[in-house]
Amino acid sequence: MISTITMKWDGKSLELIDQRKLPLVEEYVKCGTSDCVAHAIKDMIVRGAPAIGASAAFGYVLGAIENRSNLTLIAMKEVKHKLATTRPTAVNLFWALERMHSKFLELYSDKNENEVIEILKIEAEKIAEEDMEINKRMGNFGQELFSNDATVITHCNAGALATVDYGTAVGVIHAALDHGKKIHAYVDETRPYLQGARLTAWELLKLGVDTTLICDNMAGWVMKTRKVDAIIVGADRIAANGDTANKIGTYSLALIAKKHGVKVYVAAPLSTIDVSIQDGSKIPIEERSHDEVTQIRGVKIAPENVKVYNPAFDVTDAELVDAIITERGVLRYPYTESISKVFK
Amino acid sequence: MISTITMKWDGKSLELIDQRKLPLVEEYVKCGTSDCVAHAIKDMIVRGAPAIGASAAFGYVLGAIENRSNLTLIAMKEVKHKLATTRPTAVNLFWALERMHSKFLELYSDKNENEVIEILKIEAEKIAEEDMEINKRMGNFGQELFSNDATVITHCNAGALATVDYGTAVGVIHAALDHGKKIHAYVDETRPYLQGARLTAWELLKLGVDTTLICDNMAGWVMKTRKVDAIIVGADRIAANGDTANKIGTYSLALIAKKHGVKVYVAAPLSTIDVSIQDGSKIPIEERSHDEVTQIRGVKIAPENVKVYNPAFDVTDAELVDAIITERGVLRYPYTESISKVFK
Repeated sequence: MISTITMKWDGKSLELIDQRKLPLVEEYVKCGTSDCVAHAIKDMIVRGAPAIGASAAFGYVLGAIENRSNLTLIAMKEVKHKLATTRPTAVNLFWALERMHSKFLELYSDKNENEVIEILKIEAEKIAEEDMEINKRMGNFGQELFSNDATVITHCNAGALATVDYGTAVGVIHAALDHGKKIHAYVDETRPYLQGARLTAWELLKLGVDTTLICDNMAGWVMKTRKVDAIIVGADRIAANGDTANKIGTYSLALIAKKHGVKVYVAAPLSTIDVSIQDGSKIPIEERSHDEVTQIRGVKIAPENVKVYNPAFDVTDAELVDAIITERGVLRYPYTESISKVFK
Repeated sequence: MISTITMKWDGKSLELIDQRKLPLVEEYVKCGTSDCVAHAIKDMIVRGAPAIGASAAFGYVLGAIENRSNLTLIAMKEVKHKLATTRPTAVNLFWALERMHSKFLELYSDKNENEVIEILKIEAEKIAEEDMEINKRMGNFGQELFSNDATVITHCNAGALATVDYGTAVGVIHAALDHGKKIHAYVDETRPYLQGARLTAWELLKLGVDTTLICDNMAGWVMKTRKVDAIIVGADRIAANGDTANKIGTYSLALIAKKHGVKVYVAAPLSTIDVSIQDGSKIPIEERSHDEVTQIRGVKIAPENVKVYNPAFDVTDAELVDAIITERGVLRYPYTESISKVFK
């Protein structure tokens, strides 16, 4: 049993808060099948790298339940493939599916179907519980980077909603509050999907953070004319050298931050680090639908026939990142060394 | 008589295309009073520094017509004040009103009301006609900076709609096309008011430019991963040292452009240069309503109680600007010298 704002799991179905409708409507989508979970990830009912990972793990369990009468390797490979091809950039998706599938490979020739499914359930729940635990540890390490009355800029949503609970970047802010520090946050609205305006602003207000919403193109001017201590973001995939794929716009923010002496912090669990990828140039960047840019919640804002380029992520060079906050401590540049050390 | 897409003037009323409704609806608002024109400027029915200037000049004429029976200095000072307090950043507004008011000061003690009004009409029409002429000259100078197959990024709308006709930055693109060059444009959507998505994309498609719409936070990634030759923007006010106030986000774009060897060009008539202001720190930056950020065309996208910071403009340091394109030629850094030379 898992029950957070982001997701509820009762062993037979996964309920996901529909993040497309927040903050105006709080509505859950109930998925009793692996197809439904795949669809929820693809359509961004659930988003955020760690949340996608945990959802995929539960989706894998639902796939096993669907195949109970004939729980073969081929069937589960198909389930894994279906869930893995929903989104390409966040590595936590593949990490969670690999972990589930390895467990299946260990078991399926020795145990009966019911036993296998029970053990897979336990594994998926462990992934979800570990995520919450990891985020709290990350928060505690990360909050040490902030003094009282610090001002941060957030981009996208790396909050409770992007994870099973508590959040990565927002988790660090949460932990700072728990340590009695006051935090001011400028929240980038984060076009096109508006995760900042819709999700992060909502979460930070609930936490009692002094929150100011801005458009993405205002962040540079805020850094130039007001006191900003740090940019704090999550990540969708980090290469072995520390190059960081995160929501589109992070790269620009980091460049501008460097110019103004503003720190750039990435908060991400180790499952976000893909040591199989040497640098950021190897990270596939998802391009999403044109409608996300030409329409906002169904309202058209551009001429019918215009071309659109809509990359969902960009890659920030490792040397622009001042620290990567993980559940094993704060990693520093050069990351090739600090990352390889933590993975030993 | 003036008749362009942006505005139509028949001597008794000013029709303005409602730029809030473009590109989905092409609707004109007819103003027979100076109050109506002031309202149209304030509410951004008409926007863009040169278009605001010309509109204010016609508004001044309407103010004189309203006061025909008692055309006093006090009355016209009030008309001027009403029109001048609509928006604070674009200097063309004050420039055009000063020009109209000086004409009035020259005349009002010697001529009768009807004669004064006729001469004011001629002066306002001259401002509008000169604007079109100036933009074409600017375009011809500016297009020399572009080779065939050049790729540019635009921000906000500095097109025909931002002027009486032809445009400043878009005018340069227009002139390049007229010289047989092919131009590719990435159009920043330009939050919060979406002038790029709604107006520039619409204009460039009409001109036959290969146009790709992006969100503002994608421009940096485009510069990093694709060939971009230049950023080309208009301006709302340029200080004597070349510091340039333009739509919020221009400063960030320029910083990122420098990092990638992308040129930064500003296209603006001399009426945009405020030699009375030494540097950009003296330019007042308008802050606009919270609703522009928390709602998009009436659709709410943020929690009810969130604070908002909504500066409409920012200031780009002169040293980030590679050239200022004017109707008197292309000015180069250091602008303190090149600007003072052109104003001699």
